[in-house]
Amino acid sequence: MGITSYYEFRDMRLNMLSKETIASWFITLQNSICESLEQVDGLGKFSEDFWQKNGSGRTRILQHGTIFEKGGVNFSEVFGKLSQQIAVKVLELPLTSITDISKLTFYATGISIVIHPNNPMVPIIHMNLRYFEMNNGSWWFGGGIDLTPHYIDLVDAAFFHNQLKLACDKHNPSYYAKFKEWADNYFFIPHRNETRGIGGIFFDRLTQSATTTKENLFAFIQEVGNLFAPTYIHLINKNKLLNYSSQQQMWQYLRRGRYVEFNLIYDRGTKFGLETNGQIESILMSLPEIASWLYNYIPEPSSPEEQTLKLLKKNIDWATQTPKQILEHYT
Amino acid sequence: MGITSYYEFRDMRLNMLSKETIASWFITLQNSICESLEQVDGLGKFSEDFWQKNGSGRTRILQHGTIFEKGGVNFSEVFGKLSQQIAVKVLELPLTSITDISKLTFYATGISIVIHPNNPMVPIIHMNLRYFEMNNGSWWFGGGIDLTPHYIDLVDAAFFHNQLKLACDKHNPSYYAKFKEWADNYFFIPHRNETRGIGGIFFDRLTQSATTTKENLFAFIQEVGNLFAPTYIHLINKNKLLNYSSQQQMWQYLRRGRYVEFNLIYDRGTKFGLETNGQIESILMSLPEIASWLYNYIPEPSSPEEQTLKLLKKNIDWATQTPKQILEHYT
Repeated sequence: MGITSYYEFRDMRLNMLSKETIASWFITLQNSICESLEQVDGLGKFSEDFWQKNGSGRTRILQHGTIFEKGGVNFSEVFGKLSQQIAVKVLELPLTSITDISKLTFYATGISIVIHPNNPMVPIIHMNLRYFEMNNGSWWFGGGIDLTPHYIDLVDAAFFHNQLKLACDKHNPSYYAKFKEWADNYFFIPHRNETRGIGGIFFDRLTQSATTTKENLFAFIQEVGNLFAPTYIHLINKNKLLNYSSQQQMWQYLRRGRYVEFNLIYDRGTKFGLETNGQIESILMSLPEIASWLYNYIPEPSSPEEQTLKLLKKNIDWATQTPKQILEHYT
Repeated sequence: MGITSYYEFRDMRLNMLSKETIASWFITLQNSICESLEQVDGLGKFSEDFWQKNGSGRTRILQHGTIFEKGGVNFSEVFGKLSQQIAVKVLELPLTSITDISKLTFYATGISIVIHPNNPMVPIIHMNLRYFEMNNGSWWFGGGIDLTPHYIDLVDAAFFHNQLKLACDKHNPSYYAKFKEWADNYFFIPHRNETRGIGGIFFDRLTQSATTTKENLFAFIQEVGNLFAPTYIHLINKNKLLNYSSQQQMWQYLRRGRYVEFNLIYDRGTKFGLETNGQIESILMSLPEIASWLYNYIPEPSSPEEQTLKLLKKNIDWATQTPKQILEHYT
């Protein structure tokens, strides 16, 4: 028969943006990020595990490198029946949308990255990009990228947030402000009244609307994904040769303790993995090799550690305020 | 007027078993346990913090001792309005019992202990004893004590469980079997399919019935509380001089990682503390100074580490089966 009109052609192309296409791109991204990180590390190599459990995945872990103490770059693709538990507690779907929940199945694919460096002057980074669809036709993209410095460097913070802002601005002028605020609220540890780090962007439930298509949204996801390696590598190269003391390493371990608290208590991806009986070693790859807890540890007044604590706040305008302005306001 | 009958006298005495009396006893127990542990450590001393936040408490922490790397012996007394969240998610009250939840207030007092020793051959121990009451007149005792050896010693396991069994048997011949099974199910890490350690006893919602009074139950709580120090000190003295390698220390840190996973994801006391906006440093005193995670770490075949893993199972009859019987069945 052949294609007889532009509209038919367009519809065919839109249909090609299937879950398979999206998953394939996540795999390509996993390859390229792992290559870039191995190159910057020089010594460490990613191991590779394929697994099958309610879906399948490819877990890549690098341990004991020159730069990286422990990091994971994971691809996964899982599916199953949607339980009330998952729908309400994990996906936070409104109750009205799940009246016929017994008939719903889901498919989720994505890439998840957490990197814990050796040097406390190099920040921890996290990125997650995901695509979710249900058999009732609804679908969405979600994701985020956030930076957790053990010591906040305000120049690095401005660089990181400006990279994210530039990427967002190419797609929608309202994205950065909205997704930055979302990250402030998501990457927050209520019981400590601290943000996890300096935030970044976070978004969920991005779907087609009057102003955007699935292709537009996928292009945005790709923009964020492609930003990861160059942005993190800039921060690594700038800080990797800085000296540090055992006292500073202890502080790094304490901050990693907070990271563990966030991931085990609040992180939605971890919850989703545990609730769906996921591949446990892949889910918990986000945990550092070494973390520490000391009772009621309070940094010395005016120390860099205390300054970092004072900056673990929501609503700091990292991208456009000067370091001087930020310090005057918060410390 | 004076007391005119035995029944009046008895009722008065029963009324004396007030929350104040119970809380006072917990404070006395905290004192005596701290003294005993300081004595066995020789070097370490408990610090003491008083706090007030939705109640009050006395947090006692020992860090960097000879025997103990980090341990807490905490007393607390908290109260407040009962939210639906706490009633259903944390206390697991049946929905029917909380129809007039808006009028309910609660009071909870108790002692919580977690001790992380330096030497991997000395087990981690935990005990919690608590009394809970609501303004609708209902009240109950709960608690538990469980042992988490980094390396399971079957003679020590038999000793520990027999101590608990003896204490239970003095009060009710059905307690040990029931509370041991409850501990197996409670101190379990579903996502690892492992018990946290060799269990112990766990019980909740113990209240008066046709066969027991509040005084009987308080006597049982006291029996368990008084058992703690001599039982743990026996296990410390038996193992504290054993040598260990850095490899065995690494295994200790990995097992502590599992302890962190249990406490942050599943522990009901931790959840209750977080949900009620409790004193965070006291709640999280249960976390070890150092914990570790390695991706997919699998012990050498036939190593002591592998043997320990194989014994992290429910339904092992530690008290009456011989080491030979247990090993033949499980390893």
